[in-house]
Formats: sequence, structure tokens, C-alpha cells
Amino acid sequence: MKDAVVLLSGGLDSTTTLAIAQERGFTCHALSFSYGQRHAVELDAARRVAIALGAVEHQVAEVDLRWIGGSALTADVPVPKDRDVTAAHDIPVTYVPARNTVFLSFALAWAEVLGASTIFIGVNALDYSGYPDCRPEYLLAFERMANLATKAAVTGTRISVCAPLISLSKADIIRRGHALGIDYSMTSSCYDPQPSGACGACDSCVLRANGFSAAEIPDPTLYAGGSP
Amino acid sequence: MKDAVVLLSGGLDSTTTLAIAQERGFTCHALSFSYGQRHAVELDAARRVAIALGAVEHQVAEVDLRWIGGSALTADVPVPKDRDVTAAHDIPVTYVPARNTVFLSFALAWAEVLGASTIFIGVNALDYSGYPDCRPEYLLAFERMANLATKAAVTGTRISVCAPLISLSKADIIRRGHALGIDYSMTSSCYDPQPSGACGACDSCVLRANGFSAAEIPDPTLYAGGSP
Repeated sequence: MKDAVVLLSGGLDSTTTLAIAQERGFTCHALSFSYGQRHAVELDAARRVAIALGAVEHQVAEVDLRWIGGSALTADVPVPKDRDVTAAHDIPVTYVPARNTVFLSFALAWAEVLGASTIFIGVNALDYSGYPDCRPEYLLAFERMANLATKAAVTGTRISVCAPLISLSKADIIRRGHALGIDYSMTSSCYDPQPSGACGACDSCVLRANGFSAAEIPDPTLYAGGSP
Repeated sequence: MKDAVVLLSGGLDSTTTLAIAQERGFTCHALSFSYGQRHAVELDAARRVAIALGAVEHQVAEVDLRWIGGSALTADVPVPKDRDVTAAHDIPVTYVPARNTVFLSFALAWAEVLGASTIFIGVNALDYSGYPDCRPEYLLAFERMANLATKAAVTGTRISVCAPLISLSKADIIRRGHALGIDYSMTSSCYDPQPSGACGACDSCVLRANGFSAAEIPDPTLYAGGSP
């Protein structure tokens, strides 16, 4: 059996990524981060998902990114609502500086100790074109660095960074996950969740709702206002 | 004034690196990590050094690496003593998996928020030839990845990773720091410090003591046994 570390936020994309890694026969070690995110409810979703999809273990690493600042997800900055996500090309305020690099670095450390050959990450270049660390050239550069950073540089083993959703639309991702039997009601994508459900208006909610609509699959998300 | 993030462990190498960055005219933001290291006394040294050398601020980030395991520095594994450090070519048990990658990732996030152009790291390829993440090709790969990971990829600004000690011997480093007026008695290099001082026998103590001897500069280190 091949081992993989799978970054799992508890959202739709990382959940689908975990299902794909499982389907490919990997023994999956799920890794989530408590990093001071305002949407920490996603960690409860990650715990549900890791169990439901059969990860052999699930680690929630405490990594405080709040002192770094610079993002609406970790600082006291309002999350933008009701934007035209199809028109957004700037780096949004919900971008967390170097977050994927920090998360992948921990995944790399764990992969090295586990002897895992692969790190799965659910980034998507289409919907997150404004996030530099969701692009294929970034992931290739990380992989190249990773193979120089660790025992792999000495032993000749290889670590791969696998992003199976990189070129899929949100609708494609949902169709893929649906075919794999994922119950998306257990996932949480909202950047600004309310006590009674997802806000329905942040970029992440809008992309998710549009994705279900385009995939023509009923949206099982519980929205605070009843609908997105 | 140019801003730099300087990784500062509180040891001899990172202290010399901070002094060099200051000499080069950078406004230095020092960054240390509380990562569950058994030699946490080095953080007290880092605090002394940051003030003494004139860093404009000093951040100690809480980053627990203990759950990852795999190292004598963070797990309950004995620190090797009295080894022939000149003969060591394997990866030592004091290697912490992907540690420099994790630390540089946090430095990268902070540099992005600060608008800092440079990250200084006190790695040294000569004395730490067994650590893959102390080699020049690794640092170049990290720098390349960093410039794809952040706003730099969009804005065209550049982030540099600078390792001024990379090809210096320990004696060269000590001579350099001595010329810059560093009082090395405030630094702490020992992997296994005792209440009354440095152990004098771990790889780090041996390299440090040999360095002072080769540089023909009196060793100001307080050793638990009186001498290394």
C-alpha cells in the first residue's frame, strides 16, 4: 500500500481530493490546520469527512497564522460578500499570505516521517486564479524544492505533490465527487459561517452554489438564510 | 530602508547572520520558533540577541513540530554525544524533518505582509553537510518557489533568500562575528543544554568549540562541565 498525506480543510475541494486519493488506493493520512481562521467550524467538517471517507488517521495541527496578519480569513477584516466571482482577477483579501506553502511544508515534514510518497492538495486554478499559490507552476516549484529539502535528496526516493482538481471547474469537481458517493452536506466551504449555516454570499459560498447549479446536482448546503 | 526577515534561533550562526544583515543596512525583523525543541533555552538567547543587535522587532512563533516526530531534537530520543563531526555524512538523528522549509515558509508569509525583500537564514553547508535543507541547491529551489507562491508572482517584486554563511567554516563565521563585535556569550548552540550550561559533547557544541579553537578566539561559552 502506498501512503499519502492529504491536506483536508473540510471543504468541498479537499473532501473530493481525499475521495480521489482513496479511490487511487492510497493509505490516506489526513492533515488539517487550526490556524486562527474565523471559519474554524470547517475543522468539525474535516473530522467528519476524515472518518466518513476512511482516512487511517487525521491530524489537526495547531499553527497560528494570526500574528502574521494580512488576510480577511485570520484578521479582523470583513469578508467580501456578493462579488462577481467570475470577474475577480486581483488577489482577494481572503488570500492568506503563503498559506499553501506553510501547509505543504507541514505535509512534507509528515510525509518524510511516514515514508509517504505523495502529498494531495485540493487546489484549483480555475476558481482561484487570483491566488498565486493555486497555480500549477507554483506546485511544480514546491515539488522540486521538496525533493531537495528532505531525505529524498539523499536517498533518491521521490515525493510527489498531486493536485487532481487543478484544472477542473467547480461543477466538474462536484460531479466527480458525486460519482464517488460523497455526501457534500458534511463539508463546509463558507468563509464567514453563521450559527445557523453558511452565509451564502462570500466568494466561496457563491462558487460552491454556482457549481451545484452548473452540475445540475441538488445543493445540500445548509444556508443561514435558507438559500445562497 | 530595505526590510528583511531574519531567522534567529539564538545560536552562533543565526546571530552572526543577523549582525551581517544589520551591517548591510537592512531593517531586521527577527523570527524565532517555539517548536517543542528540547533546547528551548535558545529562545531566551534569541530574545537577548535580537535586542543587543538592534532588530526592530522579534516574533516568537508557536509552531508545534512534536506531533510529526522523527527527530532527537523534538522527540524522546537521546542526542548523540562525542561523535567525530568531521566524519559524519549520514543524516543525523538531530535532523528535524523539513524544519527549514517550515521555518522559511513562515518567514515568507511574514515577508509578504511586511513587504520585505529578503529572508536571511544562517544555514551552513560545510558543517551541516548531512542536512539536506542546508544546501545551496535547496535554498535556490525554495527561493524560486517563493517567488511563485506569493503576490510577487503577480506584482513582479522579488523575494530573495540570503544565506551569507553558506560556504563559511565555523572558524570563519566566528571571525566574521567577532569583527562585527558580537558577544557570543549571549548565544546558545547546545542541543542538550544542562541547568549549569552547554553539554559540550553534542555535535553542535563540538562544532562550536572546534570553531573557536580554529579561529584562535577565546570560547566564551559556559559549559556545564567547565569545558567542552
